[in-house]
Amino acid sequence: MTKTILLTGFEPFNGADINPSWEAARALDGWTGPGFQVVARQLPCVFGRANVALLDAVEELHPDIVIGVGQAGGRPEVSLERVAINVDDASILDNAGQQPVDSAIIAGGPAAYFSTLPIKAIVRALRLRGFPAGVSQTAGTFVCNHVFYGLMHHAAGRLLKAGFVHVPYLPEQAAARPERPPSMALADIVDCLRIAVELAVGVDGDVAEAGGATH
Amino acid sequence: MTKTILLTGFEPFNGADINPSWEAARALDGWTGPGFQVVARQLPCVFGRANVALLDAVEELHPDIVIGVGQAGGRPEVSLERVAINVDDASILDNAGQQPVDSAIIAGGPAAYFSTLPIKAIVRALRLRGFPAGVSQTAGTFVCNHVFYGLMHHAAGRLLKAGFVHVPYLPEQAAARPERPPSMALADIVDCLRIAVELAVGVDGDVAEAGGATH
Amino acid sequence: MTKTILLTGFEPFNGADINPSWEAARALDGWTGPGFQVVARQLPCVFGRANVALLDAVEELHPDIVIGVGQAGGRPEVSLERVAINVDDASILDNAGQQPVDSAIIAGGPAAYFSTLPIKAIVRALRLRGFPAGVSQTAGTFVCNHVFYGLMHHAAGRLLKAGFVHVPYLPEQAAARPERPPSMALADIVDCLRIAVELAVGVDGDVAEAGGATH
Amino acid sequence: MTKTILLTGFEPFNGADINPSWEAARALDGWTGPGFQVVARQLPCVFGRANVALLDAVEELHPDIVIGVGQAGGRPEVSLERVAINVDDASILDNAGQQPVDSAIIAGGPAAYFSTLPIKAIVRALRLRGFPAGVSQTAGTFVCNHVFYGLMHHAAGRLLKAGFVHVPYLPEQAAARPERPPSMALADIVDCLRIAVELAVGVDGDVAEAGGATH
Repeated sequence: MTKTILLTGFEPFNGADINPSWEAARALDGWTGPGFQVVARQLPCVFGRANVALLDAVEELHPDIVIGVGQAGGRPEVSLERVAINVDDASILDNAGQQPVDSAIIAGGPAAYFSTLPIKAIVRALRLRGFPAGVSQTAGTFVCNHVFYGLMHHAAGRLLKAGFVHVPYLPEQAAARPERPPSMALADIVDCLRIAVELAVGVDGDVAEAGGATH
Repeated sequence: MTKTILLTGFEPFNGADINPSWEAARALDGWTGPGFQVVARQLPCVFGRANVALLDAVEELHPDIVIGVGQAGGRPEVSLERVAINVDDASILDNAGQQPVDSAIIAGGPAAYFSTLPIKAIVRALRLRGFPAGVSQTAGTFVCNHVFYGLMHHAAGRLLKAGFVHVPYLPEQAAARPERPPSMALADIVDCLRIAVELAVGVDGDVAEAGGATH
Repeated sequence: MTKTILLTGFEPFNGADINPSWEAARALDGWTGPGFQVVARQLPCVFGRANVALLDAVEELHPDIVIGVGQAGGRPEVSLERVAINVDDASILDNAGQQPVDSAIIAGGPAAYFSTLPIKAIVRALRLRGFPAGVSQTAGTFVCNHVFYGLMHHAAGRLLKAGFVHVPYLPEQAAARPERPPSMALADIVDCLRIAVELAVGVDGDVAEAGGATH
Repeated sequence: MTKTILLTGFEPFNGADINPSWEAARALDGWTGPGFQVVARQLPCVFGRANVALLDAVEELHPDIVIGVGQAGGRPEVSLERVAINVDDASILDNAGQQPVDSAIIAGGPAAYFSTLPIKAIVRALRLRGFPAGVSQTAGTFVCNHVFYGLMHHAAGRLLKAGFVHVPYLPEQAAARPERPPSMALADIVDCLRIAVELAVGVDGDVAEAGGATH
């Protein structure tokens, strides 16, 4: 039976006019491989509304795996997020002008959820194929973490494998910024997501390989 | 009634011969202020044993507040950790030669605990007094997070305020490293911990002030 | 009359097995455009010998323009070097095991030479096309600067436009390094060099546009 | 005979209200050691005027050694500048609202001058005493480099040892900046300048020690 993989990306935010997470996700919309098909959906960069859109898509598509994708401007590599935490703490406004501070995403929900994607196996595969990648110990406290937490809260207790991937700026975004951030070509980001999907489909459990941080 | 504040620092690790967390903590051992006294204890940088030592000290001293302190080599500022996660994933060996990968700190424990220190109020106070400081969304997955998680697990359900603070390299450590990391003078780190203790004693709850990260 | 553009890249060094400067330069070997043709040559990463090879190629090809290209591992963007200085000071061994310290490249030569490429115009064009790029105020003191200085010393007083471009690590190089450096896709580096060649051919003088650094 | 050391620092610039270079220099005004005395002078952060003020001070004081000091916000260490280049290229306005682009500091002057301070010996001494320090291959293209070049141009052919030192932000400056730059305590910066003065007085020539950069 064909598995359905839902890939979500975000609309641009914070005044930008492009978001690499959506550019990469939509490039894989409709991609099919042995035993799976990918559907991509764009989420609004808005606390609350993003999770409504996500859960609507989950209800509609009944995916077997959900991989949220977001932009991590300033990071040099594709990062596989390990953990979502139950807090919204926005250092900038979301696209609806909201800026929640230290509020729970799900009142009474657990403090955190761990990704159920094979993040170590994905990082290993990405590096072997020459793509800079790593495990990240924080998805921040903005809309990306909000969606990641909402996703994992929904997946908890269900047969739904899920997790979140952060991607760098595109070169064209980096070219316009004075702080000279790192970037990654869109084609490479797309290839990384392709590999992540294949591993998410093909790997049960994960490999035991160090991917931690001393701090 | 006098409150007891337990400050813990770590022994040097990863081949170093000094650890700023312990240098700073022990500088405050025996410090008393209005209504409080500080006791400093050194913890081994060893998974498992560090938490035994910590809980022994807690049992002995019956502190009202515990602030764990650790070294975050490469960070430019004093960071107030927001969350401890239930995983050991060591990218280097601890001082007993252990290198756990993706193992739970407390089997069956919650995925994470949030600090109960007034981290936003402390960051605000530090910055106002001219010290670089910030909230951190990850304490890593090495012995610092291990102790932070063990501490919060013990404190859960008890009247024990607790949390964790990461401090930069000392200038002398930075001077010896080829990657040119940032550093902070020991006297400044000590002053920062002093302020953290005063706020931990004096502030109930926390202030509502953005301290999050977009990723 | 067809102009000849000599593009030089380096062999791998410091234990690496690839050098993006050569991969990019050789991808343009034989490329012809309106009124110009490109010839690429590899230089050894060896003090002294690199400049012999460079000047041999100049004597053989009689180029109108020479653009030296080198790897700047850790930089996030293509950088157009402004100035070459008359000093060798090696922090690592070159490929012949040499490590000169504070020795002049050309005894009695001027302290420095400025690039005669239209570096500001190239940076502007690269950014407009979405590539991260900038002016750099230092080419270091290793073999890249050695070649850049040797090149400019030869070009001085001749009708030879010349300069030097540093390029980032390739993604596959970054993927293998623990310090998580930025990188750039090879196709993008090649496109950047292509634009640099076109501007070097087409622009006389340079545009007046800030490209400096406060320090 | 007592040697006179002129230490210059800058007034605040770019909207700041403090400049660590002046805070540190003035802390040493009047300091005397075996065979030397220090005089500190503040320079305006203004192209042109800064060099007038510098040369007025040199004419008045007849110093044996001049050490210019400037702020390098974002650098983690005290940096001993190797080379001044003959170009003004301002990425921000100076304190008189000027923003020169690619103009020569001294028309017809040499492209660059090398510092005549024992920069390698100073870096070695600083590191040995536990202060983060390094040789820098560029002093930028703003007013610091302008003063450094003007100073070396004046010193050329005279018995005047001269050079330039860049210092990091103070902690209080870093505390107020969102990009979380590194910083150094004022007392440490002062100690570093003290050591630089002692070495400049006591060392003839320099030590042969690698201090270069690969790029």
